[in-house]
Formats: sequence, C-alpha cells, structure tokens
Amino acid sequence: MIVKRLEKNPILQPQDIPAYHDDHEVIGVFNAGVAEYKGETLLLLRVAERPIQTDADSVKTTVVDFSNDQPQVQVLTLEKTDENYDFSDPRTIMHKEKQRGTAYLTSLSYIRIARSTDGKNFTVDEEPFIYPGTSAESWGVEDPRVTQIQDTYYIQYSAISEKGVAVGLISTRDFVSYERLGLIFPPENKDVAILPEKINGKYYALHRPVPKGIGQPEIWIAESDNLVNWGNHKHLLGLSEDGWDNGRIGGGAVPFKTKEGWLEIYHAADKDDRYCLGAVLLDLNDPSKVIAKTFEPILSPEADYETHGFFGKVVFTCGVTLQDDLVRIYYGVSDTSMAICEMQVEDILSRLTYM
Amino acid sequence: MIVKRLEKNPILQPQDIPAYHDDHEVIGVFNAGVAEYKGETLLLLRVAERPIQTDADSVKTTVVDFSNDQPQVQVLTLEKTDENYDFSDPRTIMHKEKQRGTAYLTSLSYIRIARSTDGKNFTVDEEPFIYPGTSAESWGVEDPRVTQIQDTYYIQYSAISEKGVAVGLISTRDFVSYERLGLIFPPENKDVAILPEKINGKYYALHRPVPKGIGQPEIWIAESDNLVNWGNHKHLLGLSEDGWDNGRIGGGAVPFKTKEGWLEIYHAADKDDRYCLGAVLLDLNDPSKVIAKTFEPILSPEADYETHGFFGKVVFTCGVTLQDDLVRIYYGVSDTSMAICEMQVEDILSRLTYM
Repeated sequence: MIVKRLEKNPILQPQDIPAYHDDHEVIGVFNAGVAEYKGETLLLLRVAERPIQTDADSVKTTVVDFSNDQPQVQVLTLEKTDENYDFSDPRTIMHKEKQRGTAYLTSLSYIRIARSTDGKNFTVDEEPFIYPGTSAESWGVEDPRVTQIQDTYYIQYSAISEKGVAVGLISTRDFVSYERLGLIFPPENKDVAILPEKINGKYYALHRPVPKGIGQPEIWIAESDNLVNWGNHKHLLGLSEDGWDNGRIGGGAVPFKTKEGWLEIYHAADKDDRYCLGAVLLDLNDPSKVIAKTFEPILSPEADYETHGFFGKVVFTCGVTLQDDLVRIYYGVSDTSMAICEMQVEDILSRLTYM
Repeated sequence: MIVKRLEKNPILQPQDIPAYHDDHEVIGVFNAGVAEYKGETLLLLRVAERPIQTDADSVKTTVVDFSNDQPQVQVLTLEKTDENYDFSDPRTIMHKEKQRGTAYLTSLSYIRIARSTDGKNFTVDEEPFIYPGTSAESWGVEDPRVTQIQDTYYIQYSAISEKGVAVGLISTRDFVSYERLGLIFPPENKDVAILPEKINGKYYALHRPVPKGIGQPEIWIAESDNLVNWGNHKHLLGLSEDGWDNGRIGGGAVPFKTKEGWLEIYHAADKDDRYCLGAVLLDLNDPSKVIAKTFEPILSPEADYETHGFFGKVVFTCGVTLQDDLVRIYYGVSDTSMAICEMQVEDILSRLTYM
C-alpha cells in the first residue's frame, strides 16, 4: 500500500489553537469532519479543552449545565483521594462502583472550523462553530462527519451527556448559522456517516451501537426518508476474532462512490486500543450489502505523531476529499492532532478481498 | 392502593402449554402483549422453550440458524466444565472473558396467541404466531407490545441474536398473517411502547436503550412519521438514587389516554433485580414532557407466584385493557407465568406526584 503522509504532519496541533474558555488549555484538535465549500476545504475540528490544572491532588473538568434557563459553563473539581472515582484513564473519570460506568469526561469538546484554499494549510476560526447547545450535549460534541446533499451540509456528531453518547444532526448552508435536527440515534451510538445521495429512494447511514449485554461495538446501517428519522437497522460489518480489528470497529469517512461500489474508510481497534483504518466496499444499489473488504489495514499508527500523544497509537478519520483518483485522508492522531495522508483509490480497491 | 389480583392467578403457566419443539419443555409463558380484536381479548404470549436436559454435566440450548438458505432449529450442547462459559445466571450463559458478554440464552422465545371472550379465561393457539424469521431473531423474539391504530395492529418486540437485543416491528390486521417492518431500534434497546395515535402530527414511542459506557438503562422517547423510521430521541424518565427503581426502568403497557394526560404503567427494578410497576403521566399534547409520576410502586411482587419461579420477584407488564375507569393489567410473574390484576384509573391518578 502506497501511503503518502504529508511532510508537515501534524498539520494542526493543540498549541496552534488558543483556548476558547478562560483558564483552559486545548489538549486536542483532532477527528475533524471535512467539507468542500465555495472553493475551500473546511475542517470541522473537534477541539478538546480542560481547565488548567493547578493542584496535583485534584482533577478539574468542565461541563455545560443546562439545568437553569441560561446554560452555564461549570468547572468541577474532584479530589484524587475521593474513593468514589477512578482516575486511571486519561479520557474519562470512572465511578468505582462499576455498574455506574463513567462519571465525567476529563475534557469538554466542541467544533471549530479551520479553512484552507489548498487543502493543506489551514487557518482556524477564533470562535466555536458548534458548541454544546442542549442538555444532551452537556459533556460536549465530538467527532463530526459532514455529508453534502445539494447545497445543504448535514453534520453528524457525538452528543455527550451524563445520559449517554448519542448522535446529533445539524444542517447548515453557510457554516455560519445552522439548524439543530435533534438526536438521530439514541445511546450508545457514534461514528455515524450518512451517504451523500438517495439510493433507490432511501438515505443510508452507517452507525455504531455499543450494546452492554449481547453483541459487540460493530458497524450497522439504517435507512431514512428525511435524514431525521431512521429505521430498518441491519448489522453490516463485524469484528474479527484476532488481529487489528478484534476490539471495536466504526464508520470513518463519509462513503464515496467508485465504479466498484461505495467505498468506506472505517476505523478498527484491537483489544489494546490500537486504532487503524481499513476499507470496505458496499453495493452501489444496496449499501446494506458488503461486497469486499481489506483484511489488512490501509493505514496504521507508525509515525511518531500517530503513536505518541494524549492517547497514543490512534489514526482515526471522519472525512476525505477526492481529486480524480487521489483520496486525501484527514485524520486525527493520538487523540491530539490532525494529519493528512494521500492514497490512490485504485490502490485501495486493489487491496480488497471480495466476499 | 387498591389492587385486585384475580383469584385464579396465575392464569397461564408453563404446564398449560404443550411445547412446540420436539424434545423441548416450556419453561415460561409470560410478558404478553395485549390486543382487543373482534370482541376477544388476545394475549400475545412470550413462550420460552428449552431442550429437555438429559445430562447433569451439560447445558442444552436452542437457536435458529439463518446462515443457510433454510432456517434450521439447532440444539447446542455446552459442557459445564467448559472454562469459556459461566452458567451461574438461569437466563443467560455468559462468556467468562467479560468483555465478550453474553454467549447464549438458556431458552428460545417466540410469540403464541391466547384468546378469550371474557378477558380472564384463555385458550392458547397450537402453533406459534411470530417465530424467529430473520438472522436478527436467531436467539428469539420476546416481550411484545401491541398498538392498535385504526384496524392495524403494530407489534413491537425484542429481536434477539448474537448481534444484540434490538426492537422489531410487525403489523397485522387479522392475527393470522403479518408483515415484518424491520428493526426500528438498534441494539441495545427493548421495552418499546408506541402511543396509539398521532399527536400534533407525530407518532411517539417509549424505548429503553442500555448504554455500555455512559448512562443507565432508562426510558427515552422518539418521534416518527410512519412508525418505521424514528428520530428526535429524548431522555424521558430516569432512575432514582435509592429504592425500588434504582437499577433499571423501562416502558411497560402501551400508554392510554386519561383526562390528565397519557398514563404509562412502566416497570422498574432495583439493584437486586426485584421488578415492580409504577405509573408516569405524560403531557397530552407533548408526551416528551413528564408531568407526574408515582414515587412508590403501584404493584410489587408479593403473591407467591410473583415472588417464586424461574426468575423470582418480578411483575412485568406489556399491556392492559380498559373498561371505563377499570384498568386490567396483564402481567408476567417471575419470568414464568401470566397473571391479572385490576385497579381503578382514578386510584392510580391519585397516587401521582406532580413535578
């Protein structure tokens, strides 16, 4: 597989982005959705901020409180000696009473736009674009995918609160104002990627439920007439028993059309949380049919910025652009920064094994 | 609270029902959906069967295999010495590798109809009504609710397979033939109850996702235009910190209209898996608004058949009938049998605390 990583990778890092909140630091700018708008490439960056930690004996984190009329940014302080909590994961603070799961995230994410005329050099907006706006987003908004349908852009993102990780939908025509269309998938679900056109009269979305009792974190597909209401859910692609994709898999970029089928670049992690990218080909006329997949990754964490960071050994894409046969993959690295690599579509197709 | 349990409770028990599968025994007839059709009361019984166990050193269970052209009933035999499995829960066989969750159920459930002219004395059909029919149902179909909309009956049920517990929808007009409308909620979800009419142009369904990471098994509500595709998911009702409803809650009967609001009789379990029934009142014009609830159960497992059985201390309803102010609750007891109790709607309403 010929993978051309940009020499200037990572293209955006936390130190490039001033914090939006007072007394906060940006600890991640990653997992960006991608849109092409008026000749520019837009990255819808997930920006993760946390309070500047001033005391080694406590952990501060930030949520948005919607319990009153006016949403309020709240900084919470948890003592590391508090026996109710487990602080061992850098991403989450867990209840020690295991049944209760996650108590808080360690950072608050929102979406900020970066703009480029060449697709490689980006200028970041000063203000957030999508900021938590409902009680279902009080712990943040994360990992957007952008699907363009005519002149409307539909943004699918993780909406996170103490009630769970759900999937929100927002539409915009100008990347300035937008309309909230509610939660399109209930918890626990993420990694939604809506296909960019109707196929035999239906829209399709990849999604990734995380069941608690029976089943695994795997890719499903659903249908819709209007992008807001979804049904006819079907299991699409599962884990392997061993190897790079035996832990969890989920949709990545918005699928794009090739002569062979809809090509989806997805992510998979093994049981040690090492995240790679793979490709799967879906039937052009019925994307609920998998016709081929790569049995080896098309991108693995190898460069230093892919293996080291806030949460190392992660490559994770939410979007690509296409120029003829060239696919440019925008991807988050180590839950910290953004990077770019390029591949030939033909090269990806040649790595597929037909089922 | 005045609860009138029928003297002849339980009204249907496993020994009343001949097994459908050769060399199987019925171990449960419970959690029935309820419909009124042509002057009769129909119970859509969940019937659970397992292979007659012939060897104390092994456990036999049944699945339907859809991997070939023709679905095939398969009896699996697991040795109790097999170190991959944990046999301690009577309902499920767990993987010992905890991350992998449930390996198999211990029984296969399907739906069978019982018919009555007086609502109390039932005759059970000889054949199943809804039997596993897709790969998403290979481990069974469970816990149906029936929503009548004009002359069509929509049956919402748990569709269970190794991919997870999802929610299927089936429509029928005659309780003989039916149409499968696919999975309306992806895993992990159950306890769906669709309201019986459009409210301000939308259908509404209660549902109960079970998130793995963040969140609890609580009641959500979703909207639809066509009963098949669902969106605008909102959290509706949560657990309490302590008491009878601190473990899990979920929709029960199909909600019915009162002058005060939509009245929903739901179930709640505490952390010791003791299941009770409670009531919640939803706004007539916007059922996503909770206006009142009972802070104490309206029915708790007290009678011997409610406290002892395959899985004791469970009262669980999927449907009620109404005659003027009398609500007749059909409910499963101890995951074993069916029972009936009666209450006055006014009595339930008088127990509500307004929020």
